[in-house]
Amino acid sequence: MVSNRYDRGLEKLKEIDGKAGERVIESLKDISPDFARYLIEFPFGDIYSRTGLDLKSREIATVAALVAMGNALPQLKVHINGALNVGCSRTEVIEVIIQMAVYAGFPAALNGMMTAKEVFDERNKRGKSC
Amino acid sequence: MVSNRYDRGLEKLKEIDGKAGERVIESLKDISPDFARYLIEFPFGDIYSRTGLDLKSREIATVAALVAMGNALPQLKVHINGALNVGCSRTEVIEVIIQMAVYAGFPAALNGMMTAKEVFDERNKRGKSC
Amino acid sequence: MVSNRYDRGLEKLKEIDGKAGERVIESLKDISPDFARYLIEFPFGDIYSRTGLDLKSREIATVAALVAMGNALPQLKVHINGALNVGCSRTEVIEVIIQMAVYAGFPAALNGMMTAKEVFDERNKRGKSC
Amino acid sequence: MVSNRYDRGLEKLKEIDGKAGERVIESLKDISPDFARYLIEFPFGDIYSRTGLDLKSREIATVAALVAMGNALPQLKVHINGALNVGCSRTEVIEVIIQMAVYAGFPAALNGMMTAKEVFDERNKRGKSC
Amino acid sequence: MVSNRYDRGLEKLKEIDGKAGERVIESLKDISPDFARYLIEFPFGDIYSRTGLDLKSREIATVAALVAMGNALPQLKVHINGALNVGCSRTEVIEVIIQMAVYAGFPAALNGMMTAKEVFDERNKRGKSC
Amino acid sequence: MVSNRYDRGLEKLKEIDGKAGERVIESLKDISPDFARYLIEFPFGDIYSRTGLDLKSREIATVAALVAMGNALPQLKVHINGALNVGCSRTEVIEVIIQMAVYAGFPAALNGMMTAKEVFDERNKRGKSC
Repeated sequence: MVSNRYDRGLEKLKEIDGKAGERVIESLKDISPDFARYLIEFPFGDIYSRTGLDLKSREIATVAALVAMGNALPQLKVHINGALNVGCSRTEVIEVIIQMAVYAGFPAALNGMMTAKEVFDERNKRGKSC
Repeated sequence: MVSNRYDRGLEKLKEIDGKAGERVIESLKDISPDFARYLIEFPFGDIYSRTGLDLKSREIATVAALVAMGNALPQLKVHINGALNVGCSRTEVIEVIIQMAVYAGFPAALNGMMTAKEVFDERNKRGKSC
Repeated sequence: MVSNRYDRGLEKLKEIDGKAGERVIESLKDISPDFARYLIEFPFGDIYSRTGLDLKSREIATVAALVAMGNALPQLKVHINGALNVGCSRTEVIEVIIQMAVYAGFPAALNGMMTAKEVFDERNKRGKSC
Repeated sequence: MVSNRYDRGLEKLKEIDGKAGERVIESLKDISPDFARYLIEFPFGDIYSRTGLDLKSREIATVAALVAMGNALPQLKVHINGALNVGCSRTEVIEVIIQMAVYAGFPAALNGMMTAKEVFDERNKRGKSC
Repeated sequence: MVSNRYDRGLEKLKEIDGKAGERVIESLKDISPDFARYLIEFPFGDIYSRTGLDLKSREIATVAALVAMGNALPQLKVHINGALNVGCSRTEVIEVIIQMAVYAGFPAALNGMMTAKEVFDERNKRGKSC
Repeated sequence: MVSNRYDRGLEKLKEIDGKAGERVIESLKDISPDFARYLIEFPFGDIYSRTGLDLKSREIATVAALVAMGNALPQLKVHINGALNVGCSRTEVIEVIIQMAVYAGFPAALNGMMTAKEVFDERNKRGKSC
């Protein structure tokens, strides 16, 4: 029943989100394994696996959107980690967040910044240099 | 009364948005020249003029946010043009829009796609290759 | 069947929105007279009829919210007129809209400004001084 | 290259949206055939094809969400038609829209009502009794 | 001062939300008893008491809207309970939430799913079979 | 490097938000001092320092917008305090929040009300009469 989209998606999820992505999938297993499967197949198996835009730019787009929408802070945390995992510098993440003050207002940017702070602190504790 | 932020912003606005940006500023002149000035000074004079993130990545972030928010189609049109003006390919713009289906749903992505189609058609008429 | 809330609401609606409010109610008559009734009873009969906050401040709150939410431009138009009808100056309306750039971003404020421009132009044509 | 998800999705799309759905897909063909494919495969091939919730309830959920979000009126129009196509009465559609005044405010419900009015008028012209 | 709308609303509130609804009303008593009254009168006394759409479909619409809007998780929790109280199965609730990935994106659906998980766990502890 | 806009903004921030505003700025110092500076310069140095609308009306507009948007509760808390600090009564704050039920729905108003309750409780503990 596991399709190629699933395998490709799982690999991509691990590349981007590492353990955090796996934990999300794990937490869905008992409530809706189908939703867990869609989450791997469509976003990661279909979309993030596409050519045409490099993974770093994809994560910039996602961080921007999640900061702007402002109602998905847990996912923003996962994708700030994701951005750093695929080659964005901390400075680049911060620049994206600052820029969102222009498009979604200062509260959205401020909440995004606080989320970035949390992520950076956790990565510091794990000895990550970026 | 014109600050350095203003001059720097006006230059950056022209670099990104060309005539479209100037038309927006012009349309604000009789209703609120102060707002026109802020629009140049803060987004363009302060933010887009920053180092730390290249202009192409900034436009990817803006296109992503405007597609996701879904209530600013005129500005999205300006920034799809902006993205193409500063070095994004049409393919990259389309990839960003497709990706927003994951974060903001298919209607937001679909409306973004229709806006991109309009922009590409207009640029074709003006003989632009990208 | 017409309650006191209805009569009080209709009077308040006329005070704030004038003809525009009546046209909205009229347009609902054949599709959902019940919704037209709720629209008069709850917002206007219950809320705008309350003491505790003056009508001018109520319209400032509504204009701010509709600019910030950004997905209700027809209603924003009605309430910019409403604000002017109950004693706000054009300057005050513009100040509220500019301020929304801080909380909801420049595109929301810009779209609000264009709506204000439309309203002011129409009022000029009708010979209104404010 | 056409998967089972695609065939199943196309059939489901026709069942729900009729010609309107096909026109959306058609309009995407020259700008992003891949997005057109995803639009068929994931929403219609994967989700609307699921058991566990009847199609009428699915359309009630979609109409509710699109009215509440308020930034996808073209899609709302398609799905009000969809709701009527799969067995909702006009009264039920109107009830869903009225109810959204509670959760997303009166402007969202009012804009939804105007969209329903448009759809009902078009269906009347086409001689549809519901 | 208590109207028929109030009595009818309170009864409907208890039917849908049980103790959770009463707790919300209780928590409003010292800050704004008027708002508590409106909350009973308009949503429950006026809207949920209407004929034309069955209560189960009304809760499906509400769960869909609250998941899609994504900024009202406490109310979503109340209405997932409400949906189950008036006859939706857990499967139906989960289907509505999955479907919102299409219209409001995966983060909104994922946050909705986590809220459902919380509700189901609490109901399990209280020995509820659905 | 500190501009007049900065000094003017810092003074205005203290006038409106008191200690809470300073704490926000402090918390940004190690992650993005530039964003802290923009937050003082543009919202407070440029916008709140403008004439044309009194500070009390500005805070009414901000509270309305933040309640309606619903995704910025920490900032709403700061600005409910701000509204009270610059001359709004608790009653006026509550009226603004109730009114948002009309424009953004009952959940947004309810969450705003719970935030106001928190703020009032804290001010009571600090012996503030309003």
